Amino acid sequence: MRILETCISPELIHLYDLKDKTVVIVDIFRASSTMVTALSSGVESIMPVEDLEICRSFKNKGWLIAGERNGKKADGFDLGNSPLSYLNGKYQGCKIAMTTTNGTKAIVLAKAAANEVLIGSFLNLSTTAKYIKSRENDVLILCAGWKGKYNIEDALFAGALSLGLNFHHDCDATLAMETLYQTAENNLLSFLKKASHAKRLQNHQLEKDIDFCLARDQFDTLVKLYGDQLKLTSTDIQKSGTNLPKFP
Amino acid sequence: MRILETCISPELIHLYDLKDKTVVIVDIFRASSTMVTALSSGVESIMPVEDLEICRSFKNKGWLIAGERNGKKADGFDLGNSPLSYLNGKYQGCKIAMTTTNGTKAIVLAKAAANEVLIGSFLNLSTTAKYIKSRENDVLILCAGWKGKYNIEDALFAGALSLGLNFHHDCDATLAMETLYQTAENNLLSFLKKASHAKRLQNHQLEKDIDFCLARDQFDTLVKLYGDQLKLTSTDIQKSGTNLPKFP
Repeated sequence: MRILETCISPELIHLYDLKDKTVVIVDIFRASSTMVTALSSGVESIMPVEDLEICRSFKNKGWLIAGERNGKKADGFDLGNSPLSYLNGKYQGCKIAMTTTNGTKAIVLAKAAANEVLIGSFLNLSTTAKYIKSRENDVLILCAGWKGKYNIEDALFAGALSLGLNFHHDCDATLAMETLYQTAENNLLSFLKKASHAKRLQNHQLEKDIDFCLARDQFDTLVKLYGDQLKLTSTDIQKSGTNLPKFP
Repeated sequence: MRILETCISPELIHLYDLKDKTVVIVDIFRASSTMVTALSSGVESIMPVEDLEICRSFKNKGWLIAGERNGKKADGFDLGNSPLSYLNGKYQGCKIAMTTTNGTKAIVLAKAAANEVLIGSFLNLSTTAKYIKSRENDVLILCAGWKGKYNIEDALFAGALSLGLNFHHDCDATLAMETLYQTAENNLLSFLKKASHAKRLQNHQLEKDIDFCLARDQFDTLVKLYGDQLKLTSTDIQKSGTNLPKFP
């Protein structure tokens, strides 16, 4: 019997045992959606970096640097945190160092202890679920949240993934998120427009990002952490770049 | 415009500003339900104590001591954490020092910074909402959770209280809990039987406690922290003891 739990914030990660687990990092608006889109569109690898200044230093080493804080592109960075920037194939073959408000922190926390770290998004939901089912590890879904607080779009994804996996759980957070997803799934967009981070992105004229991040199964790729870098799994690499999204 | 937020675990309390706020402590199974029942049934005051041994030391000062850990009565204590123990009026006029796994910790955390601390339960939901509406403070609902983790019965109460107050909020946790309550409200008991702490209590043959803790508006009393002690508000005190629950 495989066990699934959901941690609603990186601030609670110390309450969970990550040993031997597959940890799925979720930051729907927008880090995990951007990572999946970038790698599925031909980016070679992404180095998640927690600190803004350390990320900036990668520029001198020949990397492109992507930086976001509070929903906006950080000063002096090549890219912000929009998945749409990567769709035109402009960054094919590039290596990108990336830092975001919440998502990269969650990855850095997980990599120290987990057996493997995956990046989950609605954009590759079915492929991620299929891969997890093919393995034997117990699973922890780690929601990036917003500055430590509960975040509804991450919760909805956790609910969707858990329903797709149908593993045993005795985890109230997962039960609540499954119920939430079942309530909202037919109208995810209008439900999420009431949510705090969606409002924040709307204020920055980022509605197209919101729509894109909620589109299910645009890519049939799997994003996984290898050492310090996120990459597609080897079977997916031949497909990247030609893997154009069905959206809209 | 009055603002409401919900903190899903005492472990995240540092992310919230409690200054000038009314903080409502929620530990539905069972500390907050027990406190409301005890005081509404004639207990004079309750001293919430975080530490088991400190709580035990109150015995020598002439207090009754109530102690619970992991759902069970702690060794050597007069009482555990069942609201039903207080219904027969046996403890009328008594002072009780109480320590529980999650609830008393949340109270101790809140009292340092909040303007006022209330104890919320389904048993006095409407009276608590009415009192909060009569005041002017912003509101933080603090869920006691289970050992730091998200807890579904506390979330359901937070959703019910927020819907009853109808204050402005930009808080994803509150939005999710309101949606959860709206989904489950007509069948709270069967929904909660899937939840982790309800299963734990069922294993201890505490089904009657579960049923009682979910009964809405059994008391029209308000429980508030005065200094270090929980008491009914003065207008309620005349009613206590004669305030028998409508619960079968």
